Amino acid sequence: MAALIVGAGSDLTYLTGYRIHTSERLTALVLTADGTSRLVVPALEAPRASAAAPDLELQEWQETEDPHALAAAAAADTGDIAVGDQLWASFVLRLQAALPGRRFLPASEVTCGLRMRKDDAELAALRDVGASADRAYARVRELEFGGRREAELAADVAALLRSEGHDEVTFTIVAAGPNGASPHHYTGERVIGAGDAVVLDFGGTRAWYCSDITRTVVVGEPDDELVRVHDLVRRAQEAGYAAAQEGVKASDVDRAARSVIEEGGYGERFIHRLGHGIGLDGHEHPYLVSGNDEVLERGMAFSIEPGIYLPGRFGVRIEDIAAIGDDGRAEPFNLADHALARVR
Amino acid sequence: MAALIVGAGSDLTYLTGYRIHTSERLTALVLTADGTSRLVVPALEAPRASAAAPDLELQEWQETEDPHALAAAAAADTGDIAVGDQLWASFVLRLQAALPGRRFLPASEVTCGLRMRKDDAELAALRDVGASADRAYARVRELEFGGRREAELAADVAALLRSEGHDEVTFTIVAAGPNGASPHHYTGERVIGAGDAVVLDFGGTRAWYCSDITRTVVVGEPDDELVRVHDLVRRAQEAGYAAAQEGVKASDVDRAARSVIEEGGYGERFIHRLGHGIGLDGHEHPYLVSGNDEVLERGMAFSIEPGIYLPGRFGVRIEDIAAIGDDGRAEPFNLADHALARVR
Repeated sequence: MAALIVGAGSDLTYLTGYRIHTSERLTALVLTADGTSRLVVPALEAPRASAAAPDLELQEWQETEDPHALAAAAAADTGDIAVGDQLWASFVLRLQAALPGRRFLPASEVTCGLRMRKDDAELAALRDVGASADRAYARVRELEFGGRREAELAADVAALLRSEGHDEVTFTIVAAGPNGASPHHYTGERVIGAGDAVVLDFGGTRAWYCSDITRTVVVGEPDDELVRVHDLVRRAQEAGYAAAQEGVKASDVDRAARSVIEEGGYGERFIHRLGHGIGLDGHEHPYLVSGNDEVLERGMAFSIEPGIYLPGRFGVRIEDIAAIGDDGRAEPFNLADHALARVR
Repeated sequence: MAALIVGAGSDLTYLTGYRIHTSERLTALVLTADGTSRLVVPALEAPRASAAAPDLELQEWQETEDPHALAAAAAADTGDIAVGDQLWASFVLRLQAALPGRRFLPASEVTCGLRMRKDDAELAALRDVGASADRAYARVRELEFGGRREAELAADVAALLRSEGHDEVTFTIVAAGPNGASPHHYTGERVIGAGDAVVLDFGGTRAWYCSDITRTVVVGEPDDELVRVHDLVRRAQEAGYAAAQEGVKASDVDRAARSVIEEGGYGERFIHRLGHGIGLDGHEHPYLVSGNDEVLERGMAFSIEPGIYLPGRFGVRIEDIAAIGDDGRAEPFNLADHALARVR
């Protein structure tokens, strides 16, 4: 590749320490194969950029200038261009127009291998934000659930995450009763009732690194099937932990957990992959999914999150973040109690 | 254009009512010029999609399938392809590979004209979320500022936005003293002191529509220059309001406000455009910026937000959302007091 062009987002943070919300104003780090680097940056954001990355050459653009031409000019004259995977289409298409005839590739072909293998500071950051999420969950369990709307609980969860050390709250899924059967339910107006299973899936960031934890609780006493399903999901997660070792294929970790649920008779109700990598992005490589032959290495961090979803009735999911440690085994970054908690 | 392909985000919400967070799993609405429509959707999100858009033909993809091929197959056989402006590069490049030889254009060439002109329900939603932000600001003014960190205040602001009716909080800038001179300051560890000017710029969503309000307050008594600068910014905003009328160019509204600040001697310290459109996205067309000859029409909604930034000292910005009403004039959607508020 001749040049790498990454916009706002985690690649930029990883490479420079500079973090900025994605917006319609192009910020572009242009790195060339011969070692030049330049940050094309909106003038009004230049003070923050130079404070965050003082060694980087900045090229400021004023509100009426075309930043795509500046980024294109900073790229090498020939050769392939890698663009950040999350760069918006509006930027990609203009860069393609400004660099005609060049082949464009996703930057993850370069950055994925770097970002997947966390160094000690990154692992410490993930451990830290995971512990913060654990503390929040311990307090969430003490909240009153029955008779309150999902959205009210979600607001409480967000406040507890901040109070326990999160800088940002990214999502707070509270999915009660049948809503729990939709893995990506948007928290809503449902009033939580006695006997409801409630899937709690929440996370955010501390020092830019992401948390992501799921626990399933029940209001009052669970019925027999909920107990049985929860136990099955928990054993599937334990099988995932046991399989997640250095040298093992990502797909085989998925398989190990999935087999437990299949043997329990709920294979068709585990409707998503086992897990996703995590770091500066909430979802990143490696993905623990059938067909992914990537091999786990020390320093790789990912979720282990089996689930069972029974349409019209309830869902159960248990999720921890873990990383392959120096002993080659998965170290949990979430230690919050995994049991089916009874809440009020 | 032969087909429009939009991913997760506001174009999708606008066209279908379905809202989903952007992620590495492709969701793609494919509309063709001959009237077919199809939503390519991850299987695990299909329940939410079909509930939100029951009339839409869904094409579910499983975790191990390639959704790009499905989206490409749904597009017409020949002709240009419009892709959502915020679609990630990783999706765009794969769609380009799956549709070789086709010209790709940004979807905003189609959607921008639709989304810029808000209908009555959209204007009501913007009015509603704006009033919610106003109520939050009224309570923010009652908070204790002196001796507290910016980040603590930001957490309070977020909680007040939720408490006053916001579904999501998107940003909470609290920029005290010299931090206020960086328009996009990230709220941090600075302890707010007596005499500090504090720029408060916050917003989020209610029923998917965005708020965005800025007020500048002072801890205790302001010095003379702060009073003078604040007064100048306020007069610039009033000039912006007066100029923002049906039939006026967006650039001329920017000019009207900017002239006031230039005449006051601070022209070089107003380092950004006057405003941005707002709706389902926090920033969208029309942009009130030099060089933009778009003409304002009834139903267009935008921010009016002049600012003056004095590096190393302080910043002042005042921002309202407004829309061109039936009388052809700008109706304010933020009515919160514009004066330089004295806080504790």
